Amino acid sequence: MKSTPEARPRLIALLHGPDRPGLVAGVSGWIYRQGGTILHADQHRDASAGVFFQRVEWGSSSPDAASEAAAFHAYAAEELGMSVSIALGSRRQRVAILVSQHVHACQELLLDWRQGEWTADIVALLSNHTTMQEAAREHGVPFHHLPMEAGRKAEVEGRQLALLRELHVDLVVLARYMQILSADFLAHVGCPVINIHHSFLPAFAGARPYHQAHARGVKLIGATAHYVTPVLDDGPIIHQEVRRVSHRDAVDDLLRKGRGLEKLALSEAVRLHLEHRVLVYENKTVVFD
Amino acid sequence: MKSTPEARPRLIALLHGPDRPGLVAGVSGWIYRQGGTILHADQHRDASAGVFFQRVEWGSSSPDAASEAAAFHAYAAEELGMSVSIALGSRRQRVAILVSQHVHACQELLLDWRQGEWTADIVALLSNHTTMQEAAREHGVPFHHLPMEAGRKAEVEGRQLALLRELHVDLVVLARYMQILSADFLAHVGCPVINIHHSFLPAFAGARPYHQAHARGVKLIGATAHYVTPVLDDGPIIHQEVRRVSHRDAVDDLLRKGRGLEKLALSEAVRLHLEHRVLVYENKTVVFD
Amino acid sequence: MKSTPEARPRLIALLHGPDRPGLVAGVSGWIYRQGGTILHADQHRDASAGVFFQRVEWGSSSPDAASEAAAFHAYAAEELGMSVSIALGSRRQRVAILVSQHVHACQELLLDWRQGEWTADIVALLSNHTTMQEAAREHGVPFHHLPMEAGRKAEVEGRQLALLRELHVDLVVLARYMQILSADFLAHVGCPVINIHHSFLPAFAGARPYHQAHARGVKLIGATAHYVTPVLDDGPIIHQEVRRVSHRDAVDDLLRKGRGLEKLALSEAVRLHLEHRVLVYENKTVVFD
Amino acid sequence: MKSTPEARPRLIALLHGPDRPGLVAGVSGWIYRQGGTILHADQHRDASAGVFFQRVEWGSSSPDAASEAAAFHAYAAEELGMSVSIALGSRRQRVAILVSQHVHACQELLLDWRQGEWTADIVALLSNHTTMQEAAREHGVPFHHLPMEAGRKAEVEGRQLALLRELHVDLVVLARYMQILSADFLAHVGCPVINIHHSFLPAFAGARPYHQAHARGVKLIGATAHYVTPVLDDGPIIHQEVRRVSHRDAVDDLLRKGRGLEKLALSEAVRLHLEHRVLVYENKTVVFD
Repeated sequence: MKSTPEARPRLIALLHGPDRPGLVAGVSGWIYRQGGTILHADQHRDASAGVFFQRVEWGSSSPDAASEAAAFHAYAAEELGMSVSIALGSRRQRVAILVSQHVHACQELLLDWRQGEWTADIVALLSNHTTMQEAAREHGVPFHHLPMEAGRKAEVEGRQLALLRELHVDLVVLARYMQILSADFLAHVGCPVINIHHSFLPAFAGARPYHQAHARGVKLIGATAHYVTPVLDDGPIIHQEVRRVSHRDAVDDLLRKGRGLEKLALSEAVRLHLEHRVLVYENKTVVFD
Repeated sequence: MKSTPEARPRLIALLHGPDRPGLVAGVSGWIYRQGGTILHADQHRDASAGVFFQRVEWGSSSPDAASEAAAFHAYAAEELGMSVSIALGSRRQRVAILVSQHVHACQELLLDWRQGEWTADIVALLSNHTTMQEAAREHGVPFHHLPMEAGRKAEVEGRQLALLRELHVDLVVLARYMQILSADFLAHVGCPVINIHHSFLPAFAGARPYHQAHARGVKLIGATAHYVTPVLDDGPIIHQEVRRVSHRDAVDDLLRKGRGLEKLALSEAVRLHLEHRVLVYENKTVVFD
Repeated sequence: MKSTPEARPRLIALLHGPDRPGLVAGVSGWIYRQGGTILHADQHRDASAGVFFQRVEWGSSSPDAASEAAAFHAYAAEELGMSVSIALGSRRQRVAILVSQHVHACQELLLDWRQGEWTADIVALLSNHTTMQEAAREHGVPFHHLPMEAGRKAEVEGRQLALLRELHVDLVVLARYMQILSADFLAHVGCPVINIHHSFLPAFAGARPYHQAHARGVKLIGATAHYVTPVLDDGPIIHQEVRRVSHRDAVDDLLRKGRGLEKLALSEAVRLHLEHRVLVYENKTVVFD
Repeated sequence: MKSTPEARPRLIALLHGPDRPGLVAGVSGWIYRQGGTILHADQHRDASAGVFFQRVEWGSSSPDAASEAAAFHAYAAEELGMSVSIALGSRRQRVAILVSQHVHACQELLLDWRQGEWTADIVALLSNHTTMQEAAREHGVPFHHLPMEAGRKAEVEGRQLALLRELHVDLVVLARYMQILSADFLAHVGCPVINIHHSFLPAFAGARPYHQAHARGVKLIGATAHYVTPVLDDGPIIHQEVRRVSHRDAVDDLLRKGRGLEKLALSEAVRLHLEHRVLVYENKTVVFD
């Protein structure tokens, strides 16, 4: 009896490059010739920029899915001229979370993971405070307390980098980590970093966005999950959430309502990333959802 | 100098049928061999039902796009086993609107059309009242007043059908038309019929949904645009909109807020339909947006 | 130095009764004469039913706020003809949660409480499963495992009632408790019971609402927090949340997205209740937010 | 037979000033003593600023509601120390709309008015283009074509001001009027001016906000209705609307989706203003809805 396509090893490729006729036919024809079955395929053309984007996920019939992945990479890069990233759907990715004293977003990620929603594991919590220490222990996640003191930032970042490297981390999530990472840290971390900013970017970048929102008298507040770049709060946006507020909401109410938004936006962005649905191009994202 | 893909005649196909390997490759390969350029392609697999769905839109390089459409239809139906509908993107569809005394949804469609948002034209307004007569004249749309009297429904529907046939209508829109169409009308109309129901279906089907919503004390109200089938308020749902209400909203407030929702939901559903983005399957819709 | 109004003991009254001139003046005049300062006052008239509703919260200057509460109750009931409930803002209410194997909504309430968002405490978790046992221990909440077996429902409900009475519980929350409470239980529980139903009521009442929603092909799903009455899924609605879904969402996706909605809707409804913002009248709620 | 409170002349007062005990009692007692019946009363305390805000609407039993309005104004200003504005609910306000070539928001306001949603009338359309000329004629609204040429701005604004004064206008609405009004115009217009800005302010103030939003790659776009002040796009925000967008949306799609948001946000803001629900304080609004 043959297995269903869903039961076979899955490969997921993200492609982008100069648009030209035959790209969809090329990719789908290659997969068909290997005996694969396309489970999902989604493409996008940026007509003004002349760029083609695709996410394709297929069930492989090869006994060696890793080799098929390598062969696909070579085909798409060399014959189609595409930038390619390709992943084996079954590989559990390794996530590290940096958190400070605001723990709600971190707690949400722990629950998503425990709920079985990820093909990934949280392999470490790093914090400059001990607020999450007990919860980490309860969830069986190693907790690393690296206090941040004046003048010691470079040293602490060095220890963080060593730890992340040692743990072979695939993704770093800043779950309301209240420190700004240095350009040097970002240059060496070696994997994507997702941050949750507590405003509807680009409005209210920087510090104390709920205080800024209250002062401006906006009628909606938001939260923005984005990849971190060296420019503060300027990286590619993955997901945003908003909700209504009114004059009745004091800053404390905005903080409370905002916590809900931050949880939602970060949880969704991390899920989209871990499912290989996000492609970054020119400081923007293409999200294949 | 060659034309850009966007400037060529566009063909849009909607396909569905039994899933099997090679469908994406088959479709995209066929288009590539004709010299076409895929502008958008979106596919969906219903894994549990084993059905494949696709919307594909391409720029044709053929001097005779209509023949290419026919050839594609034959290929997809015969060689891939798909149900196919295919349209020439540039063909202006012909829309008739049935309306009663509640004119807001009809006015919205007139403005969408006048704004240039459609590759379609409103070729007739049919009404059992004269409320829209003047506005129809102002927009240059022929207005047909067919009063509905007790015992004359079959006769009026007969005149409506004759008119719609004579006008070669591609789509009938019920923009708050307060009469229930007979199964006989639906059997003979010969084109899709879209209705706007003033509730979040399946809640509050039938008459006076805002009164029902008020009596139940719901905290959100909605509007639902759907294809009409012989079962009242049960056809495939195309689009739904909702907004918050509170105990402060009397029935009149719900009616007013609901008008905004009805306009939004119907306008969006008609646009999706006219852009060939909606595929009906087993009383549900696949909306390629 | 005088204290600010916010720093004094707060009293919160919910009133409703036959509308007549002078009710706002009566209530506010009474409070003023006691030396109180109104912090919030919100009233609503149901013009068609002729009913007046009010929530008023004030800072008392009395050395004995409990006596002032009793005096206000007598005044509003006897002189104004109102039904009254009145609470001391500083009193920590006692909440019990009934939960089954779906733990996300229960976890959200635990986090809300630990975040310091409530003037209330979770004094017990009752479950027919042991899924939440460990988490309860971690949060320091007594956990009571009462397995539900065929034919033992009356006995188990009796033990639940005894426990809730012994704990002097002010509110019972069904956080995805998959059992239907008997009319007898509801008649004897002696405090409000809030349930989260995993659909946008009144659509999809009863079992397996996400399966129902998937079968109907709706474009939005919802969750509804409501007070429990003996009629299943028919009690007064406190809060509802919705989000968009599409044909791409299989039942499992609806379940996942729905978990987010259930958390949001239940968390908000419990907060509104605990802040004495919800007044029930004729199977509907007036929510003073 | 006595009339119902709703059937009597209605008075609507907006108050704000330094908070102190007895304000609610003072206002409601005064109304009660005149034989009035409060229909709605909503108050707000800004605890940090120590400011009290109230909207109170009552049915007057006086044969001379205008005199009662004047007496209330004197009482609230002199005895309670409040800033007061008071209006007779039945008075039809006079609205002038300034519009350019983007007509959708103006059309929406015309339909709201024709639908009978306002206690107000549109008494003039002023435009630097003739796009709305025909529609104005159809709706029976005087149309004034005042072309804007280089170097003639002061002259054109002078003619606009003369016209608005002559028409005794109560409210000016900029319905996508693409000119920036001078500080001098604003100093002399003598009534509030509401503008619709086509972004989620404070993000993307200034020109071409949809182009800015596209370049930044945001996942939600918005529209903001606000009172106009001499600082561009910085006035008190009345209402905001948002909706999701994705990488699939080119600038033209954002423009189309944005039109829907602009209509919604402006329509709601104008309705709130005309119902005397908006109180401006320190460049923010208190919206009693």
